[in-house]
Amino acid sequence: MMIDTSLIAEENEARADHLRRDYDTLGERLDRRGIAIDEIKRKVAAYGVAVPSWGVGTGGTRFARFPGKGEPRNIFDKLEDCSVIQQLTRATPNVSLHIPWDKADPSELKARAGALGLGFDAMNSNTFQDQDGQAHSYKFGSLSHTDAATRRQAVEHNLECIEIGKAIGSKALTVWIGDGSNFPGQSHFARQFDHYLKSAKEIYANLPDDWRLLTEHKMYEPAFYSTVVQDWGSNYMIAQELGPQAFCLVDLGHHAPNVNIEMIVSRLIQFGKLGGFHFNDSKYGDDDLDTGSIDPYRLFLVFNELVDAEMRRVPGFNPAHMLDQSHNVTDPIESLMVSAMEVQRAYAQALLVDRDRLTEYQQDNDALMATTTLKAAFRTDVDPLLAMARLDSGGAIDPVATYRASGYRQKVAQVRPDVSGAGGGIV
Amino acid sequence: MMIDTSLIAEENEARADHLRRDYDTLGERLDRRGIAIDEIKRKVAAYGVAVPSWGVGTGGTRFARFPGKGEPRNIFDKLEDCSVIQQLTRATPNVSLHIPWDKADPSELKARAGALGLGFDAMNSNTFQDQDGQAHSYKFGSLSHTDAATRRQAVEHNLECIEIGKAIGSKALTVWIGDGSNFPGQSHFARQFDHYLKSAKEIYANLPDDWRLLTEHKMYEPAFYSTVVQDWGSNYMIAQELGPQAFCLVDLGHHAPNVNIEMIVSRLIQFGKLGGFHFNDSKYGDDDLDTGSIDPYRLFLVFNELVDAEMRRVPGFNPAHMLDQSHNVTDPIESLMVSAMEVQRAYAQALLVDRDRLTEYQQDNDALMATTTLKAAFRTDVDPLLAMARLDSGGAIDPVATYRASGYRQKVAQVRPDVSGAGGGIV
Amino acid sequence: MMIDTSLIAEENEARADHLRRDYDTLGERLDRRGIAIDEIKRKVAAYGVAVPSWGVGTGGTRFARFPGKGEPRNIFDKLEDCSVIQQLTRATPNVSLHIPWDKADPSELKARAGALGLGFDAMNSNTFQDQDGQAHSYKFGSLSHTDAATRRQAVEHNLECIEIGKAIGSKALTVWIGDGSNFPGQSHFARQFDHYLKSAKEIYANLPDDWRLLTEHKMYEPAFYSTVVQDWGSNYMIAQELGPQAFCLVDLGHHAPNVNIEMIVSRLIQFGKLGGFHFNDSKYGDDDLDTGSIDPYRLFLVFNELVDAEMRRVPGFNPAHMLDQSHNVTDPIESLMVSAMEVQRAYAQALLVDRDRLTEYQQDNDALMATTTLKAAFRTDVDPLLAMARLDSGGAIDPVATYRASGYRQKVAQVRPDVSGAGGGIV
Amino acid sequence: MMIDTSLIAEENEARADHLRRDYDTLGERLDRRGIAIDEIKRKVAAYGVAVPSWGVGTGGTRFARFPGKGEPRNIFDKLEDCSVIQQLTRATPNVSLHIPWDKADPSELKARAGALGLGFDAMNSNTFQDQDGQAHSYKFGSLSHTDAATRRQAVEHNLECIEIGKAIGSKALTVWIGDGSNFPGQSHFARQFDHYLKSAKEIYANLPDDWRLLTEHKMYEPAFYSTVVQDWGSNYMIAQELGPQAFCLVDLGHHAPNVNIEMIVSRLIQFGKLGGFHFNDSKYGDDDLDTGSIDPYRLFLVFNELVDAEMRRVPGFNPAHMLDQSHNVTDPIESLMVSAMEVQRAYAQALLVDRDRLTEYQQDNDALMATTTLKAAFRTDVDPLLAMARLDSGGAIDPVATYRASGYRQKVAQVRPDVSGAGGGIV
Repeated sequence: MMIDTSLIAEENEARADHLRRDYDTLGERLDRRGIAIDEIKRKVAAYGVAVPSWGVGTGGTRFARFPGKGEPRNIFDKLEDCSVIQQLTRATPNVSLHIPWDKADPSELKARAGALGLGFDAMNSNTFQDQDGQAHSYKFGSLSHTDAATRRQAVEHNLECIEIGKAIGSKALTVWIGDGSNFPGQSHFARQFDHYLKSAKEIYANLPDDWRLLTEHKMYEPAFYSTVVQDWGSNYMIAQELGPQAFCLVDLGHHAPNVNIEMIVSRLIQFGKLGGFHFNDSKYGDDDLDTGSIDPYRLFLVFNELVDAEMRRVPGFNPAHMLDQSHNVTDPIESLMVSAMEVQRAYAQALLVDRDRLTEYQQDNDALMATTTLKAAFRTDVDPLLAMARLDSGGAIDPVATYRASGYRQKVAQVRPDVSGAGGGIV
Repeated sequence: MMIDTSLIAEENEARADHLRRDYDTLGERLDRRGIAIDEIKRKVAAYGVAVPSWGVGTGGTRFARFPGKGEPRNIFDKLEDCSVIQQLTRATPNVSLHIPWDKADPSELKARAGALGLGFDAMNSNTFQDQDGQAHSYKFGSLSHTDAATRRQAVEHNLECIEIGKAIGSKALTVWIGDGSNFPGQSHFARQFDHYLKSAKEIYANLPDDWRLLTEHKMYEPAFYSTVVQDWGSNYMIAQELGPQAFCLVDLGHHAPNVNIEMIVSRLIQFGKLGGFHFNDSKYGDDDLDTGSIDPYRLFLVFNELVDAEMRRVPGFNPAHMLDQSHNVTDPIESLMVSAMEVQRAYAQALLVDRDRLTEYQQDNDALMATTTLKAAFRTDVDPLLAMARLDSGGAIDPVATYRASGYRQKVAQVRPDVSGAGGGIV
Repeated sequence: MMIDTSLIAEENEARADHLRRDYDTLGERLDRRGIAIDEIKRKVAAYGVAVPSWGVGTGGTRFARFPGKGEPRNIFDKLEDCSVIQQLTRATPNVSLHIPWDKADPSELKARAGALGLGFDAMNSNTFQDQDGQAHSYKFGSLSHTDAATRRQAVEHNLECIEIGKAIGSKALTVWIGDGSNFPGQSHFARQFDHYLKSAKEIYANLPDDWRLLTEHKMYEPAFYSTVVQDWGSNYMIAQELGPQAFCLVDLGHHAPNVNIEMIVSRLIQFGKLGGFHFNDSKYGDDDLDTGSIDPYRLFLVFNELVDAEMRRVPGFNPAHMLDQSHNVTDPIESLMVSAMEVQRAYAQALLVDRDRLTEYQQDNDALMATTTLKAAFRTDVDPLLAMARLDSGGAIDPVATYRASGYRQKVAQVRPDVSGAGGGIV
Repeated sequence: MMIDTSLIAEENEARADHLRRDYDTLGERLDRRGIAIDEIKRKVAAYGVAVPSWGVGTGGTRFARFPGKGEPRNIFDKLEDCSVIQQLTRATPNVSLHIPWDKADPSELKARAGALGLGFDAMNSNTFQDQDGQAHSYKFGSLSHTDAATRRQAVEHNLECIEIGKAIGSKALTVWIGDGSNFPGQSHFARQFDHYLKSAKEIYANLPDDWRLLTEHKMYEPAFYSTVVQDWGSNYMIAQELGPQAFCLVDLGHHAPNVNIEMIVSRLIQFGKLGGFHFNDSKYGDDDLDTGSIDPYRLFLVFNELVDAEMRRVPGFNPAHMLDQSHNVTDPIESLMVSAMEVQRAYAQALLVDRDRLTEYQQDNDALMATTTLKAAFRTDVDPLLAMARLDSGGAIDPVATYRASGYRQKVAQVRPDVSGAGGGIV
């Protein structure tokens, strides 16, 4: 374990009395509403959200990147950082790898993760950047490129990701591509989509039987006029074309302004194609901010759909949950811990919704009471519940304070050299 | 004919020499590019866009409506106005009716339209307003209402629209509903969509074999939190669920900000589900401004997709074209004439695209030359070509000037009484 | 009083024990954070938000209006409805009138309001609709019209509003106009703005010394290409040009997508020109939904700025607070009660922010702890605090339940006749 | 000269006959509209738009950068590339430098530029990236940083830019900063703006008497929750606070979705604070695409405001014109040539507007004819006019074809080494 357990115990000790008191009074209030707090706590404790390996490094923009102290040097450093998040929050048991960034000997990966108490979530391929020595450039696309050899190279890379994933126990491949165009006319939409579908089918054909293929849509960036998988409509077409193991992945920041994301979630659930989430938050574009930091009610409304589906036991409903954020101005470990707790919070709040009453209000078109019912759940301060779930399972009541007290960042900064920052004049 | 043909002849006479001169020099320039101007003119002359019956009345907003002079009193007045548009532009041979606003004896409708040289396009149902004496209110929805009797009433209304349409020679039913919700939780998304699909299937089951069902998506308004058919993704699901006679209708103003509409058009073509268009323009929301008045290049890019599909002879490709605008500050007849010509213009420009070269540039990822190729077509001033097509078929070289010279508006204002304006305090 | 006080007492009785228990445990938690709950309660109890007279009627869209039961027939009915809101919530002591909708004998207005325990907030003029018998139409503008006589008429109307306001004790005039254009070129921006400024100066010149002139910006609707007072930049220019009694009014739904509204609030405070608010919520455009119903955190962030200014004792800081919503699918009284409480909630939560720590985190660029500090305040469930403030001052612990129990709507529906609904075919 | 003039002559020779023919027929058509084509040509020939030195390198996104062949290695390579653009288009006489990227001996800069026939436009400072050896990081801001020493460093850098600019003959400093925050609460808006204003005043105090300070607003990116100079409202406040030499710079891609940019241009002109432009185009955010490539009508509408001000001889009206684009998928030289011609095109089209008639239509609220008047100018294909202006002044009739024929890119690729591409895992 990266953080001394005695430190955690000490930090928890200082907070435990107040926590118990708050947990009890919350329990009393929930009890009045016919809700057993321990049952909610049990569900929350069983819930986990995956951490992306790349998330523990400091992110940046096209203008600059400002690295922090102790940036991880490789996947093994990243796994250590991820284990800190899991150790303190008990909410992030799995790590999602990105190839080729995280390429390493699979058995070593598995061993190191196992030793740190971590498993592996979905594999992520990368055909939006060129790698040294690569035969064909992705400047003008990858899976949808006009050139067959380039498409072939991109397909092969995805197949390699599957192979690595098989070796380390992953069960899913997430495919996000930057393919698109910057100018009207640059690409022929139909031919380009056709290329994409054919490439995706080749990948799908090589998917192990117990794997899922998660395709991800995004409105724009890096392409600025059109993007091949631009929205959930195109994504749904893809999942339909590919087959029963193909599903749509929803990143909360990948939509047009004002779009009702929770409704898209509902549609994909209804048609059996919701594959999972990349959680984050955004105010403008794909800002990749900490989950719930900008519009926490929207996050709750997404979880309201998920819990609704869970309660209705929708067949085949089993979405993957992953954080996907860019931490430009915070310590990535802190942001990921807080975000993991925000996801848990939204889940807990959604579990508190009085669904029988809600259904009645909906049936009666009592809009005011229906929305008040959601708000009542959202307003409930479930902090004590989340903290108690952490305490029960060996985590920290206050992960950020405990992390800071541990001096972990300072320690790794001593062994991990400073990295220089800014990319060049990309404006 | 509502406008004296001698007036048209006289107006044309004054402009014919310059037109011939400009047509010839344009022909010379196109000839250099390997394009036969007469061939383009022939295609443009054969092209028509339907006029919505409600479009000839002055529109308004929730704040106010400011009627003009000579507002049409009923569908027969509207048909007369529509015939003026067709007489002068030769671009709008058909009228699209809205029930119950245009309800009248079908044989009388047919006879009057025939006499005016007009045919009928798609029928439009209305379940977004309550009508006097209606048993169930659409306040909380129609085809997707939680109450079965209300849904039934809405279905019946659509069936009635089909019956009227059959009697007058229409071949399509356009269904746009305002159903949705104003608050999170007000509606259960999945149940609501399920209701919609069941209702739509009942309508579809009663569709004549040679008819099409066109469903229309819209992001928001009148519902302000969620809309049942909110985007092309849901619309595509509907068309798939219903069957081969069901298609998606695209209104240019019904999308989220920044959305790439021409790409949606391409996707729907590729998957065989593009049913047609409601043409208009918008800067903010569903502004229903005159087609091409805000972003003429976007209109061209949509037609670029249509002509591309036409050239590739995509099987089953046969979209309906209709204007759908709200004329709040202009004479509706003038706006509709100009808009019809704008649609023709975009079509003509799209026909000028050098598609062989474009394909090569696209294949070679020569983004600059590809987009320049589109721009070269868009920049071509096809005014003489459009005007010559009108002149050839008996229309006006300058429809607006001729219309104003005719004094039509003043004449109808004498027989059609002034109507008072503003709705009450709907804010 | 419109609601029997014994009913309120009875309803409160049934809820008082739990409330006291919850108030105490909340007090205990706040005490740990160094906050005296009674002090916050006192501030909340002293806080009031004005109700717009037009808000108690059912609103609508350009497509339809679906009236409810017991729609108020005139300003006196409206005052009764407003008094119910105040009686139950104790949060809405004042009513904001709209002229000419609410025109009546001033002394009668004052007497009736006084009897109902209500005062009057800002006056609202209306030059976005034509009134019967009006000499000049506002179809093409009012204060910024190209025609001097029309501008004069609009100015006179505003002066009349001031006169009425003086008679009933108002201290502010709110000016919102729909002036703008629907097409590029329709209006000359600079001349139009010049007209506006001159008209506004004439109004300003007639403003009593103790009054404020509040001008309101809005991005679009009813004008769909350009709006004269389109954003806070133009609004600020106006307030500067007019003088020290002129201020900017911020309606939360009147901005471009994604705009950071709380930042605009901060800028206007910093430069001494924040006049007040029209509270509501929106997801797409000027949706006029219930305050806090779509993005409660955004509402909190606005109040965070207001409390920050209050704490810093910014000179001259004294914004007006008013609700401005359109209630299309709910009972307007219920929506206004809930919205008033949402505004109070945001105020209470903003009062809980630990501003000393926040300042330190800001100074140290500890982004994570700074934003966590705001979130901690936002997450606090202040329901017991708000309810206790109501209970203390004679309001209802649960205003909606009490209102429903009172049968008020059914009672007024017996004396107020049903009104028919939909406007005509304004599409 | 970088391109052999005999090649230009040869390329022009092949196109000159058709050009003369087209110029004459265009002249004939314009003559009918009362416009002397030679007069327009003269104005267009006199018009210039500055090229940004960084624009001749391939740009990128936070995901990747895909360099092209022959990337310029330093400012002297960049000047050569810029001179090619000017040589062929005759539209880009000046270059805008970016410090520290373009730092070099001023006299050498001046000499080299002079030899290439180039002058220098506004200087651009950079406080959005950290430079090696810099004492204080801009991670959390520059001119508005909470730390006085960091602000001081940023001010000093701007003063250095002025010094360099003085030495090379520049007359303006453009200040764009990335300062802002990623999370609610991270920054105190008012204190941050106060810091900014104080820093800007220090820079302003050191501005030579014949210089202008141009401040640039931007909605978001690199900051994703708030930006210090987020819109024209804040920018206008800054220009007012600083004084008569301070003006607002408008980048076409820096606004919220749907914003009416031409109206902002008008407001800034009216209040004497329009400093100039960064031209580019965008569909989603600050996409930095080629000018006019996405919405050419919007570009025209901006120039419509500029020509209107020029015609009205607005006192002090003298905006700077500069391109600011990121060329990710095209040869930067080609994109900049096409963009310079697009800017000229918009200017030429705006000069064709019949302003007397437009004014009448506006006065009469003849919205249809007013907007038709603008459209008539926009639709005019001024290609022959622009090409003749180039031919007259020694440029190329078809700059892109001539550039490709010259083999310039291949030649510089032989002396300029390939650069490797992608930034690291910044996602």
